[in-house]
Amino acid sequence: MVRVRSPRYGRKLDDFTVGAVYAHPWDVTVDEGMLALFAASFQDAIPTYASRVAARSVGLRDRPVSPLLLLNLGISFSVHDVSEQAIAHLAYTDVRFPAACYPGDTLRASSLVIGKKPVSTGDKGVVHVRTQVVNQDGLLVCSFERKALVPPGRVAERPADAPHAVAQPDAQPARLPEELDGPLPPPARQGGFACAWDDFEVGDVITHEVGRTIGDSEHMQLATLLRNSHPLHVDEQYSRSSSFAKTRVVHGGLVLSWVLALSSRDTAGCGVWDLGLDEGAHPSGVLAGDTLFAASKVIAREEAKSGAGSVTFRIVGVKNTPPRALIEQGADLFTPELGKAEGRVKEKVVEITRTLLLRRRS
Amino acid sequence: MVRVRSPRYGRKLDDFTVGAVYAHPWDVTVDEGMLALFAASFQDAIPTYASRVAARSVGLRDRPVSPLLLLNLGISFSVHDVSEQAIAHLAYTDVRFPAACYPGDTLRASSLVIGKKPVSTGDKGVVHVRTQVVNQDGLLVCSFERKALVPPGRVAERPADAPHAVAQPDAQPARLPEELDGPLPPPARQGGFACAWDDFEVGDVITHEVGRTIGDSEHMQLATLLRNSHPLHVDEQYSRSSSFAKTRVVHGGLVLSWVLALSSRDTAGCGVWDLGLDEGAHPSGVLAGDTLFAASKVIAREEAKSGAGSVTFRIVGVKNTPPRALIEQGADLFTPELGKAEGRVKEKVVEITRTLLLRRRS
Amino acid sequence: MVRVRSPRYGRKLDDFTVGAVYAHPWDVTVDEGMLALFAASFQDAIPTYASRVAARSVGLRDRPVSPLLLLNLGISFSVHDVSEQAIAHLAYTDVRFPAACYPGDTLRASSLVIGKKPVSTGDKGVVHVRTQVVNQDGLLVCSFERKALVPPGRVAERPADAPHAVAQPDAQPARLPEELDGPLPPPARQGGFACAWDDFEVGDVITHEVGRTIGDSEHMQLATLLRNSHPLHVDEQYSRSSSFAKTRVVHGGLVLSWVLALSSRDTAGCGVWDLGLDEGAHPSGVLAGDTLFAASKVIAREEAKSGAGSVTFRIVGVKNTPPRALIEQGADLFTPELGKAEGRVKEKVVEITRTLLLRRRS
Repeated sequence: MVRVRSPRYGRKLDDFTVGAVYAHPWDVTVDEGMLALFAASFQDAIPTYASRVAARSVGLRDRPVSPLLLLNLGISFSVHDVSEQAIAHLAYTDVRFPAACYPGDTLRASSLVIGKKPVSTGDKGVVHVRTQVVNQDGLLVCSFERKALVPPGRVAERPADAPHAVAQPDAQPARLPEELDGPLPPPARQGGFACAWDDFEVGDVITHEVGRTIGDSEHMQLATLLRNSHPLHVDEQYSRSSSFAKTRVVHGGLVLSWVLALSSRDTAGCGVWDLGLDEGAHPSGVLAGDTLFAASKVIAREEAKSGAGSVTFRIVGVKNTPPRALIEQGADLFTPELGKAEGRVKEKVVEITRTLLLRRRS
Repeated sequence: MVRVRSPRYGRKLDDFTVGAVYAHPWDVTVDEGMLALFAASFQDAIPTYASRVAARSVGLRDRPVSPLLLLNLGISFSVHDVSEQAIAHLAYTDVRFPAACYPGDTLRASSLVIGKKPVSTGDKGVVHVRTQVVNQDGLLVCSFERKALVPPGRVAERPADAPHAVAQPDAQPARLPEELDGPLPPPARQGGFACAWDDFEVGDVITHEVGRTIGDSEHMQLATLLRNSHPLHVDEQYSRSSSFAKTRVVHGGLVLSWVLALSSRDTAGCGVWDLGLDEGAHPSGVLAGDTLFAASKVIAREEAKSGAGSVTFRIVGVKNTPPRALIEQGADLFTPELGKAEGRVKEKVVEITRTLLLRRRS
Repeated sequence: MVRVRSPRYGRKLDDFTVGAVYAHPWDVTVDEGMLALFAASFQDAIPTYASRVAARSVGLRDRPVSPLLLLNLGISFSVHDVSEQAIAHLAYTDVRFPAACYPGDTLRASSLVIGKKPVSTGDKGVVHVRTQVVNQDGLLVCSFERKALVPPGRVAERPADAPHAVAQPDAQPARLPEELDGPLPPPARQGGFACAWDDFEVGDVITHEVGRTIGDSEHMQLATLLRNSHPLHVDEQYSRSSSFAKTRVVHGGLVLSWVLALSSRDTAGCGVWDLGLDEGAHPSGVLAGDTLFAASKVIAREEAKSGAGSVTFRIVGVKNTPPRALIEQGADLFTPELGKAEGRVKEKVVEITRTLLLRRRS
């Protein structure tokens, strides 16, 4: 008798146990190639993440791995155990980058189930997890919470997990790597991008003029490289029947990365570090061929220390229409879509709050 | 009088000399960027090839270059001298990875002509070569045989080879790098992928549920990076008139890599090393936009040494229909297509035998 | 009162000051990932740039960054300040690579405004700049001049530059890195590509048979990676209204790189170094899906030193028709298109003069 197996991964609502920690099986050395593929899609202006010289000038020992790459790896590593069956990714909160990760580090991740509940219609549920990414020494380099919408019941052919007893510390992660404590040394070079901490005022709105069209191959390469195993991003046969769009959909973590990159020349060219992302959501999906744009609003500004200050931006991403045009048409870009009574912006694909440590001129 | 030259490479049947060794001109340092581009298409679950920590835990000094990347480089380096005029790639056999290759190594390859003969119709021929890939110290890191279908006659404007006297040793290459001899140390981490050597029984069939759609840019990037110089993969003008598909066709070594990667979470997540590939063939071609799937059958299982055992899988790749559906329709997936009297599986794009060294739980 | 800003970069004719030096804000560490992405599009046969062994055999300390990648970085870094508003890139001249750049180096660039003048119709102008790329020690690794066609007037919402006082030395850059002075040591290996300095005669024409189709994702990835910020290459919404082609257009520096790579097996397989590029122009644009081909003409040949000589090629790139076919149809490929009274080759996409240092057999 031939035994035919068809293993499936991820979890449905009844597969989750509140309080459990799932140790994701991926074990990946981050290398310069991964950094370059990330830089080849996301033209980010933050000098710390692109230049060894700039990174050393702020106190790091080398050019660190982009925090957004860490977030993307964390989300993607967790798909195998958390969201490979998920219908939608609902929210990101409390995204923190407490320590620098460097090329050559080897990363693992785990997810703690914080909560789960069926939605009122009873035909699906929401699971809430905290995912942590650590390097080979167990140092926490990225922590975040996210919520996903999952089907009810159980995954029929899910193999049992390999045994493990991984725990997650409860402490709230720091917002800044230790090496960046203390006064900020002066920049290593003249020039650089123009916008500094001093140039932002609470209430300012910036529409970022240049957009980015998403390539079919590039978004699949990134999903594959990140070890994102959801077929929605890379399997057209699955997507024709099971995707809400009836075709492959771009991984949300990439959409976020494109939008933050598109905003970066105007907001982050004097950036030192990402102090955190919060209140993130994806109101609609993105397909290959769509063109993404970004707009930002300054919602807070604080002096942080000698040489630097923090600015908190609300950043939104829209598809196929520049945000300047949407604002001229009267669109309410910066109110969260979830819970809007009216005036929903159907072009909006991501909205998130980002806090950056920026150099000060004064 | 202007001299116009139009050099062409590869060989037709009469250009091959049995017993000759062709030293392929490519000379390439393998780097982390190459590893990342490979990882960005092929989501492979074998920890040894992805993680420096996992690689060291089995006795290697660093994360090695994926054996499948070595095979792809060997095939591709040989195109310039062997198969740039070829009509089809027919078979792979005796693929071995006798020593680990590391990022930073510089690779060359050579091919020995083992045999050639016209096919019965007389209008083409089959050439049989053994290709060996060595690093900068002459260490053999990959060896394999392949057969290709080539046109009769000679290539008119083929430049003479640069003089060389390269020989290939006759010894049968080892199946395991020296560093991996001896008992397998325990894993460096808890968790990991669930399937271990203990979980497989001879006769088991596994259909791998997630597929991968192939991007147009990504397959051309990989062919170019590998130094595969056959215009069939990257030159649409050539392909419109000269390709069997009337368009560009994906390099077979990449199809193989996609299919083995698609099978890897279910077969190789506790993988330590590739002990060899054999009896490989490509019954049909693959185009950008096709979605690949994999299915595996366990054909042998042996205890190898303390902590590890070998499992031999027959792995098939199909396009655009999941293998579970094909099996339910009664398809005979695991009989080789060549020589099948009836019941040919027209969706099959690759079939091969793979032997893996896997961790044992017991 | 909400302040809405829409910053724009680049310059229009009145924004340029002759004699000014613009320090471009990008600050980027070149890594192995960047080299691999370049190699994944441009299958270049020059051993020095691909192999650490070959690079050391000519006197360099490591595999250097491909000079064409440096040129592309220099052009792209300058877009933010020079050509983000440009209508067309007109010409490259005096491209030199006076020192080797290695992976791990961190690059910056600056552009000196050499001249500017309105065209006769008065509705646009030509700006002439010299761009220099330096590493973290200020060592000049790439220098070139280029001309671009820009709109009249000023960019309304251009942020003021960050203050800087960068100067460019006046000295004419060397054509050869210091390490390559002196007699050329013998090659590190037997075999290699066949064509050596001895094989070329002035007047020879070579049509390179294999073409390369350009992928949509890959050209956007490269433009993004290079930090080219012109929306013409990556923003389909912008391009539909503002591109001469009504869609995205491939960055010219990439077109040049494809064409030189396509010529390389026949002209540069014994290449040691790029002694310079001159008189380069792009008579027409290239879109994703186009297939590029190359043809070369030998216009000079000189003994350079023991073991090596220089050959100067005029190299042209055409799209969608092989150059052999164009020559058979009587096309005049090698006369520059600019100023041709008749016989314009509408398929031509690039033409340039390249001087290479090649190994000699004799």
